[in-house]
Amino acid sequence: MGGGKALVFVAGQVPLEDGQLRFIGRVPTEVSLEDAQAAARLCALNILAQVEAAAGLDKVDVVASVTGFVRSAEGFGEQPQVINAASDLLADVLGDAGRHSRAAVGVSELPRGVSVEIAAVFVVRT
Amino acid sequence: MGGGKALVFVAGQVPLEDGQLRFIGRVPTEVSLEDAQAAARLCALNILAQVEAAAGLDKVDVVASVTGFVRSAEGFGEQPQVINAASDLLADVLGDAGRHSRAAVGVSELPRGVSVEIAAVFVVRT
Amino acid sequence: MGGGKALVFVAGQVPLEDGQLRFIGRVPTEVSLEDAQAAARLCALNILAQVEAAAGLDKVDVVASVTGFVRSAEGFGEQPQVINAASDLLADVLGDAGRHSRAAVGVSELPRGVSVEIAAVFVVRT
Repeated sequence: MGGGKALVFVAGQVPLEDGQLRFIGRVPTEVSLEDAQAAARLCALNILAQVEAAAGLDKVDVVASVTGFVRSAEGFGEQPQVINAASDLLADVLGDAGRHSRAAVGVSELPRGVSVEIAAVFVVRT
Repeated sequence: MGGGKALVFVAGQVPLEDGQLRFIGRVPTEVSLEDAQAAARLCALNILAQVEAAAGLDKVDVVASVTGFVRSAEGFGEQPQVINAASDLLADVLGDAGRHSRAAVGVSELPRGVSVEIAAVFVVRT
Repeated sequence: MGGGKALVFVAGQVPLEDGQLRFIGRVPTEVSLEDAQAAARLCALNILAQVEAAAGLDKVDVVASVTGFVRSAEGFGEQPQVINAASDLLADVLGDAGRHSRAAVGVSELPRGVSVEIAAVFVVRT
């Protein structure tokens, strides 16, 4: 990256809140679209916590990429609307630095059955 | 990366042509292998358009990685053949710089039901 | 990355051993959890072989990220346990440099029906 920047790869985050997994199930049959968006926001908060611990949020130059996996019931194609909720939260917290490229896909299963998992790559100033 | 290079993360691209999504369905039952390859080429063209807009194709040093998601019917395992079509197009356009590492996986659902989604990371000269 | 470091993106590796694919099927119904862990270790060995060929394992600064796809039967949520086997192998071989962020997801299909596919990004000294 040059010029005192580094990449921080954030592991796939799940909707963990106060040590407990939330929003278990397939979208939208077992977890509604709205709840899946809440799950995505929890993932985003956990991503921010990871970046804060690794480098400090004040050091974020830009969010390089976000990859969101939505545990999808057959025929569900609104993965972008789910992951948008995480994107919006990142933009709210980080401002312009929070804009990012993104991929959203629908998978059949996720760890412990959660509805959403999101990984990210950040560029930070060193 | 050192030496005046930067990474460009390209968001997951879908088979969008003239503002319209094409090749909707699972491979190979609803979308044939050949049509899925056409979808992959559309994704690759949209990736190139993103890189052109972000940095200019003449600045591409190398394609670092390509991740292709193929919406797969049960038992379909030819994801590499589908994503190869995108890889070949990138190599045709970019020459040696177009060679890349790649992952191809089969997912159950994709945004709006498209058959292929491809994300990529490019190294560009700054 | 600055300071003489570069990223190596390793393509999605499958459980190829002596030129033959092993551990074909869904986890845990067709391939047991233990066998899937063996598949993940094979993927990790193939990742190390790729890095050795591309840059040399002695040049590894740190494993930046590992993304593991587990071909999952309905309701299977132990993807982390599967991919942990690859993570443990990387840590055994590389020591502290082998620690990494990770995403593990469950997908419906993988190339040629394999049970596990793993992609990775390494930071190497140049």
